[in-house]
Amino acid sequence: MNKKTEIVCVGNELLIGKVLNTNAQWLARRATSLGIMVNRITVASDDICEIAKVICEAISRKPKFIITTGGLGPTFDDKTLEGVAKALDRKLEINKKALKMVKEKYEAYAEIGKLGKIELTPPRVKMARLPAQSKPLLNSVGTAPGVMISLKRTVLIALPGVPPEMEAIFEESVVPLLKKEAGKLAFFEKSIFVDSIMESSLAPLVDEVMRGNPYVYIKSHPKCREEEPRLEVHFSTTAENSKKAEERLEKTVSQLSKLILKSGGKIRQ
Amino acid sequence: MNKKTEIVCVGNELLIGKVLNTNAQWLARRATSLGIMVNRITVASDDICEIAKVICEAISRKPKFIITTGGLGPTFDDKTLEGVAKALDRKLEINKKALKMVKEKYEAYAEIGKLGKIELTPPRVKMARLPAQSKPLLNSVGTAPGVMISLKRTVLIALPGVPPEMEAIFEESVVPLLKKEAGKLAFFEKSIFVDSIMESSLAPLVDEVMRGNPYVYIKSHPKCREEEPRLEVHFSTTAENSKKAEERLEKTVSQLSKLILKSGGKIRQ
Repeated sequence: MNKKTEIVCVGNELLIGKVLNTNAQWLARRATSLGIMVNRITVASDDICEIAKVICEAISRKPKFIITTGGLGPTFDDKTLEGVAKALDRKLEINKKALKMVKEKYEAYAEIGKLGKIELTPPRVKMARLPAQSKPLLNSVGTAPGVMISLKRTVLIALPGVPPEMEAIFEESVVPLLKKEAGKLAFFEKSIFVDSIMESSLAPLVDEVMRGNPYVYIKSHPKCREEEPRLEVHFSTTAENSKKAEERLEKTVSQLSKLILKSGGKIRQ
Repeated sequence: MNKKTEIVCVGNELLIGKVLNTNAQWLARRATSLGIMVNRITVASDDICEIAKVICEAISRKPKFIITTGGLGPTFDDKTLEGVAKALDRKLEINKKALKMVKEKYEAYAEIGKLGKIELTPPRVKMARLPAQSKPLLNSVGTAPGVMISLKRTVLIALPGVPPEMEAIFEESVVPLLKKEAGKLAFFEKSIFVDSIMESSLAPLVDEVMRGNPYVYIKSHPKCREEEPRLEVHFSTTAENSKKAEERLEKTVSQLSKLILKSGGKIRQ
């Protein structure tokens, strides 16, 4: 029902654990809230072959969208577009629109920072070298443009790794696209907090309720140890429209709540 | 040189962005610090086929270790071991040692919580149903044991998703294994903080220094906008021993620092 999407995060800093992958969470949450389903998140290193491999694998799973983040900047280790070009067997070429965007940014920086003329050196021009037939996406808070490439079944979107830049391009250029794809699809979620019932005692109750409500996903998150039970029970669903999603969720919350109370559990809403 | 490892995180809560993937960062950082190289991180949904697919794909890349986290608990949606069993074409069967671990936990909980006898219901026994020929790993802070499976080229380790449980099993049962594999391999890292030079101006300097020091990875992280440049420059390397790693890093930091100062940048160590 909901449109499948994959997220690919590029960066050695994620693989050595230097940086916490808040970008993946932000993208996943935002896409989900629009009714889009994220099926997989992959973190790849700053290696052209590895990026190309990850992109090829993602394309083979035929998602509607692949959203990459990281690796669009001016430094030699920003290799996402080289990896994408390799995966798609396309040349990297200077994109005129992208070059105009980059040029205008440096002119603005020169003016703001009173830096004199800032030359378009190769590392700066690099940010405008996109795979053939790409559409650059305006980066309103940073320099490197985002990139959109329409493939046969999949739209590939490459965003920078700097969070405010990624978020801005996503909101300005990607959200309209996802909204169009999702139509009226709506995602709803709700949590209840349950005391005095062990997760292993809750399990068969959740099982029973989910069998009767197959489109609602219920997941218990232990907040304490099993012997002092305190659980967050999270309900989520994506439905054809928000009314249906809300109704479906409320019905399920009510059913499980009754079973929990009957089993001696306590609920804090 | 360093032993390749993949991390697989299982959980819909990660794919809807409800939960920030701190487990992946913790595991990546800890493995890296031991001289082990994390090549890829994959987040998969709570779906048996999807988990099996992700595990098969990881095995096909022949890493030394695959470490999974999440999906070992008592609830129906804890499906990691079913996915692993499917990937390996092994049966799930009650592991006697694991069952003993689970039983002892519930006996202890009953005593601590004065809960009377806690029966070994199917959801509780589920945590002891492991793929054939698995070795259970003691969970000193929670209930579900970790799981270790030795394959032809790869050791697969499944850890719970609750952070303190994952961390405890990792420290107690996985670290000795990784240390043995890494031998004297040592990972070193250092950051310098650079003002007054744009990332796009730093790029060719980094490129020059990295060409002369191919085993040191240098990555710039912009902390501000390009027009008010403030960069963290992060150096990292894994070497045969800690002395070599440290020397290699210091040499590289010193070389790049000189070039930065020559170009008008300022360094705060």
